[in-house]
Amino acid sequence: MRVFSEELMSRAAAACNIKDFRAASIMETSQASSWLEKETGIPFIHLELGSPGFSPNPWGVAAEKEALDLGYGAQYPPLGGLPKARQAVSRFLKSFLDIELPADCCMITSGSMQGSLVSFISLTQRVPGKDKILFLNPCFSSQRNQLSMLGVGYRAVEEYGCRGEALVARIGEELSRGDIAALIYSNPSNPAWTCLEESELKGIAAQCERYDTIPIEDLAYFGMDFRHEGYGTPGKAPYPPTIARYTSRFVLLLSSSKIFSFAGQRAAAMCIGEPLAREHSPALAQRYHGIGEFAHTVEADLIDLMSCGTAMTVQYAFARMLELSCEGVIDFVGDTAEYGRRAARMKEIFLRHGFSVVYDRDLSAPTGDGFFFTLGYPGMSGAELASELVAYGVAVVNLKASGSVREGVRICSSRISGSQFDVLKSRMSDFAEDHPSAR
Amino acid sequence: MRVFSEELMSRAAAACNIKDFRAASIMETSQASSWLEKETGIPFIHLELGSPGFSPNPWGVAAEKEALDLGYGAQYPPLGGLPKARQAVSRFLKSFLDIELPADCCMITSGSMQGSLVSFISLTQRVPGKDKILFLNPCFSSQRNQLSMLGVGYRAVEEYGCRGEALVARIGEELSRGDIAALIYSNPSNPAWTCLEESELKGIAAQCERYDTIPIEDLAYFGMDFRHEGYGTPGKAPYPPTIARYTSRFVLLLSSSKIFSFAGQRAAAMCIGEPLAREHSPALAQRYHGIGEFAHTVEADLIDLMSCGTAMTVQYAFARMLELSCEGVIDFVGDTAEYGRRAARMKEIFLRHGFSVVYDRDLSAPTGDGFFFTLGYPGMSGAELASELVAYGVAVVNLKASGSVREGVRICSSRISGSQFDVLKSRMSDFAEDHPSAR
Repeated sequence: MRVFSEELMSRAAAACNIKDFRAASIMETSQASSWLEKETGIPFIHLELGSPGFSPNPWGVAAEKEALDLGYGAQYPPLGGLPKARQAVSRFLKSFLDIELPADCCMITSGSMQGSLVSFISLTQRVPGKDKILFLNPCFSSQRNQLSMLGVGYRAVEEYGCRGEALVARIGEELSRGDIAALIYSNPSNPAWTCLEESELKGIAAQCERYDTIPIEDLAYFGMDFRHEGYGTPGKAPYPPTIARYTSRFVLLLSSSKIFSFAGQRAAAMCIGEPLAREHSPALAQRYHGIGEFAHTVEADLIDLMSCGTAMTVQYAFARMLELSCEGVIDFVGDTAEYGRRAARMKEIFLRHGFSVVYDRDLSAPTGDGFFFTLGYPGMSGAELASELVAYGVAVVNLKASGSVREGVRICSSRISGSQFDVLKSRMSDFAEDHPSAR
Repeated sequence: MRVFSEELMSRAAAACNIKDFRAASIMETSQASSWLEKETGIPFIHLELGSPGFSPNPWGVAAEKEALDLGYGAQYPPLGGLPKARQAVSRFLKSFLDIELPADCCMITSGSMQGSLVSFISLTQRVPGKDKILFLNPCFSSQRNQLSMLGVGYRAVEEYGCRGEALVARIGEELSRGDIAALIYSNPSNPAWTCLEESELKGIAAQCERYDTIPIEDLAYFGMDFRHEGYGTPGKAPYPPTIARYTSRFVLLLSSSKIFSFAGQRAAAMCIGEPLAREHSPALAQRYHGIGEFAHTVEADLIDLMSCGTAMTVQYAFARMLELSCEGVIDFVGDTAEYGRRAARMKEIFLRHGFSVVYDRDLSAPTGDGFFFTLGYPGMSGAELASELVAYGVAVVNLKASGSVREGVRICSSRISGSQFDVLKSRMSDFAEDHPSAR
């Protein structure tokens, strides 16, 4: 039996300004499920929002209080960020990716949401005619929405059934049209949790270099491919795969939100490969009345025009957490490994009740258990499934929002815990009973 | 005698990626003057950056530490901001402007820089064909640069020699062309420190209503027109002039940066008049695939796509400072009155050495002493004066950056204190001696 009636669902949609549950965004679904919880007193199982499931990193909290005591907070943040934070990002890249990048190529942004927005603007304005973005689908829908906001064009390549050399060739085909300024993907992928492998990254890097396209690698879930042991040990292999190993003309987005459970504080870094950072663009020079150096435009024009940078005390905390990670005091991989265990337990429950994992294969292995996974149900579209699961008190997101060609939903493993697994079991048992098409 | 040689100035420009000192932006001038200080050990008198001259508000600092202790910081900020902060903004508007606005029409933004950016995007996308911004010049140059970044068109009306009915008529003329989505001005004005008076605001509001143009009133320096006694007493007249008294279709930008010396933390509010907030725009519905309600688009799409909102602990602190102001515990007008005293002392020094105030008159009185004032020097363009003053160890900003038709520079009174007044005297005495054209 459903937990919430049609009538309640309609009222929730109206109260939250949602046109149609089947097309609701992540934040809208989150808002509506909170509304239903308040209205009925029945708790939801929140699998929609990719919000951390833990308390904010205590070292970060302590550092931020220290910064407050030191009187940070009155003066505008320096262009590009607090030098301490930029240096810490540089050191972190060396320690955990074995990539050398000077601190002045690392910019602090108000979350990677700002990082991707600044990347999109700067890269599509860099070379006249190169003004579109290529997504690897399924993608992080907010990044696509950023382009709708800006009025910037985009295309996409779907990864399902197209990995390895086929994927590289498909990307090359799109880049060869000459209008793609940048390619963006997250690795591990939000929402598919697939991971591009070294051979793929190497091939993609070559295609990018060939056509002067900049890859934007979103490392929001850095180190969380838990299939590989040993990530996250400072200065020691193995290192997670990164395109920065195959081209120096890249943008990496590194976020504190998941690895340090600092999503509420909005601190991230936009790391620009040095040759790209130092490049002079006549188009940028003209538009911003400066000398058009790429990194300078990003810090002095774009980030400054977005929000004058990132809260000073948060930058201070970000710096401390990065530093302590490099010193082996913070174990951000160990700290987030619980997400993998939660994903495994949930997958077991869902699969037992007729669901299947949509993006189930990587190039050379099954998809791992981590922060996200994808689910389908026989005979149901992703929109129907997402809307129907809300009625059973389980908030999820339709994969269509990610531009996926597959029908299904995204599940985030971060916020379920304790007795909620039993509630999930019972609700999915009801769901399966009411939807026997699976049998 | 100059403090810094031509050669040093050139090296500073090169080190800071500045093409020409005479066209340098505020942040570039700031960067270059810091470079010169480091290189030579000679301190600058920093009159360029509009950064607070005091420590961050201690109540805000204490509240932020409290929020950290309470474990804020892990979860993404709610759409539109922390309810507590939105309610506090609503209460603040009632207490200090005598304006009633529901909390859900008040959005928390990462500083008013984000507030103006979100305003520009939402308002120019609201009605097809209404896609340009009208500035009241001289304007805050960063806001104009935001439009260059977005590729949005703008025009401007200069206020010099055109106040009162003439100004209202001039604005009406521009609005009558039908393509102006919004009019933006700051009151008091950055950089001129002029203040639009009630009669002007009333006339402008009528023109805006007539042509469906939304006024964006930037209240960055709220309550700092120190010519008027009694501002800042909660619930008691007199209240500063505001366009919100003459139209309900407005956007007000309220910032914590100056009134609470919280510029480093990036907290502000975008307050949307209720009829505008509730309006449905087919164009916004189509672009963002929602129902197109203006306020919902702003919070669920634009602010979320900018940075996923504002740091949670900072929002908590912002809420506390607004509440304590309403309770009469924080006296933000008294706290900032020192800026007026510093401006008066500086003006006296400059005027004695041959300078004059460029924007010296308001509609019905001389310009007051506050956070900014403007200066000219006989026979020198604003660019020459700005560049030359840097050579004398005084960092200022060319008024041309603000689109002013007048030659001169902007002076910020916030950061000069103590013995720096004597240093200023001596440097300006040298300046006057070396530039006898003034005599």
